[in-house]
Amino acid sequence: MASEFTVISRYFKDLTGQQGVALGIGDDAALINMTPGQQLVAATDTLVEGVHFPSSASGEQIATRALCVNLSDIAAMGAKPKWFTLALTIPPETASPKWLEGFSCGLASVAKAFDLALVGGDTTAGPLTISITLLAEVPIDGALLRSGAKAGDYIYVTGTLGDGAAALAEITHASDENKLTERLLSRFYRPQPQVEIGIKLRALASACIDISDGLLADLGHICRASNVCAEINSQQLPIHPEVKANHAQQSLVWALSGGDDYQLCFTLPQNLSQQVDQWIKSGQINATMVGHIVAANNDKEAILVDGKPAITTPRGYDHFSS
Amino acid sequence: MASEFTVISRYFKDLTGQQGVALGIGDDAALINMTPGQQLVAATDTLVEGVHFPSSASGEQIATRALCVNLSDIAAMGAKPKWFTLALTIPPETASPKWLEGFSCGLASVAKAFDLALVGGDTTAGPLTISITLLAEVPIDGALLRSGAKAGDYIYVTGTLGDGAAALAEITHASDENKLTERLLSRFYRPQPQVEIGIKLRALASACIDISDGLLADLGHICRASNVCAEINSQQLPIHPEVKANHAQQSLVWALSGGDDYQLCFTLPQNLSQQVDQWIKSGQINATMVGHIVAANNDKEAILVDGKPAITTPRGYDHFSS
Repeated sequence: MASEFTVISRYFKDLTGQQGVALGIGDDAALINMTPGQQLVAATDTLVEGVHFPSSASGEQIATRALCVNLSDIAAMGAKPKWFTLALTIPPETASPKWLEGFSCGLASVAKAFDLALVGGDTTAGPLTISITLLAEVPIDGALLRSGAKAGDYIYVTGTLGDGAAALAEITHASDENKLTERLLSRFYRPQPQVEIGIKLRALASACIDISDGLLADLGHICRASNVCAEINSQQLPIHPEVKANHAQQSLVWALSGGDDYQLCFTLPQNLSQQVDQWIKSGQINATMVGHIVAANNDKEAILVDGKPAITTPRGYDHFSS
Repeated sequence: MASEFTVISRYFKDLTGQQGVALGIGDDAALINMTPGQQLVAATDTLVEGVHFPSSASGEQIATRALCVNLSDIAAMGAKPKWFTLALTIPPETASPKWLEGFSCGLASVAKAFDLALVGGDTTAGPLTISITLLAEVPIDGALLRSGAKAGDYIYVTGTLGDGAAALAEITHASDENKLTERLLSRFYRPQPQVEIGIKLRALASACIDISDGLLADLGHICRASNVCAEINSQQLPIHPEVKANHAQQSLVWALSGGDDYQLCFTLPQNLSQQVDQWIKSGQINATMVGHIVAANNDKEAILVDGKPAITTPRGYDHFSS
């Protein structure tokens, strides 16, 4: 299916100006010149039809979601995404020129927005599966990890929470009436990886993670990696008014454990919070303080919400499968 | 399905000594320290059940084949493979502890043989698909490309050709009687990526490619990239006596266009051939001179075999699908 990859790479002709690509698509492998003084950052993510997106999704929607979800992992490291490879497995009956054009357009539009170069990959016949490996750079020892949170640190989240779950409920018609707004649809198929904020936080945040499985689950990862506990004030959780109004019953649960938000959760030593608060006030970043880190205590749950142990429900991975 | 990835990563506990891994599995992305003076080499390959391996294949067989096929691309660049990410999509009913153990063991055994570190990836529920991104290093401007062949260069191949196609025919029972030997089975599920030879050829070969789609198809890529033609002497093609004896009718066609051999095809300026011939004589490398490069001639086919235009049959990608 080399021809399919040719179609995809055609859309990247205008996107070959990225720094560091010594040899892109067309040989056995890509050759990349790394910037001296930088570490290589690598993350792989897979999207499967019926699991991560419904069969009704268009090629363009699938492509934008796949790349944005992957970029979110890079954002959480405070790294600058630069290059990616694509493994596209696609049923022959799906691989029409129109579908491939839409897919390529979607991929190219996100690549352009984040100044990424597609450096290789392959296309295979089979069930629709998209696996992307993103390569990024971060100054040596400058990456944001999950493991640096300390008792006393403030906990922040970017953007609004619960949008991903609200969109999912609407797309799967799990809610009573269809209230799928343009904003929600876009949040689902084109999440907004917080790359710029991640880079700004590099010298400040003590820990960082992207919220893919819900705030409680992902903050839980920070707590385990840092050996601390956390307290969240639910009143402070940033929930979009639209989601609050349309889903009064579920919006809080979704904000806590809905997943698919692809915002960042980060912790900040109190003495560094002034800088971030000033960025927030001046509109440079969109983030909200939602709680604080406390010392590890083996007798209680890792995360308290409004003073009570949070009960997290494991997030199902097969939203769309029967 | 994080637990599946935990099973896999458990088998890599003994394999974490590789140079350069600053942060492996367990954060949002991996952090890697590149060696100064080296370029990054990246290649992605996907294996799909029913397309690249039959449903009867074991987890161990699938893992070894996936990693070796990918390593072959790196070998063709003359690069040193170092790190890889794994995207495993697997049906829940397949993901038994036994299957995952076999898969992990296979992966770990190849990783150990080539001194590779698994730095990340994810496991997803869905149709069985394995996508691996291999990351390697090569001295700046030292990589072997497809584009450097010149008229007069000798053409060499490593190992024997036609083994992959013979194994495939036996596995799919396309041949009259089952003559699937241990050697052939092993060639199919554990190809022998010519990493060491690729590195040795760095300062010598004018062009190099790995033979995944058959000698004619892959040598054709060198011809196009280098704007030259080629002449092959079929008498010189290295075919294993076993394949010759068991498949007298097909062995030559398989050696020319069978695919799945994962040997290297490289071109060598005549004045540098002495060094390689000496390595061959002393048993340091296993390679055979099979022809030579001639000037491009738009009036004839790119490749002549025994003086006649070679008719290449496009290789089907769906060997195992119905």
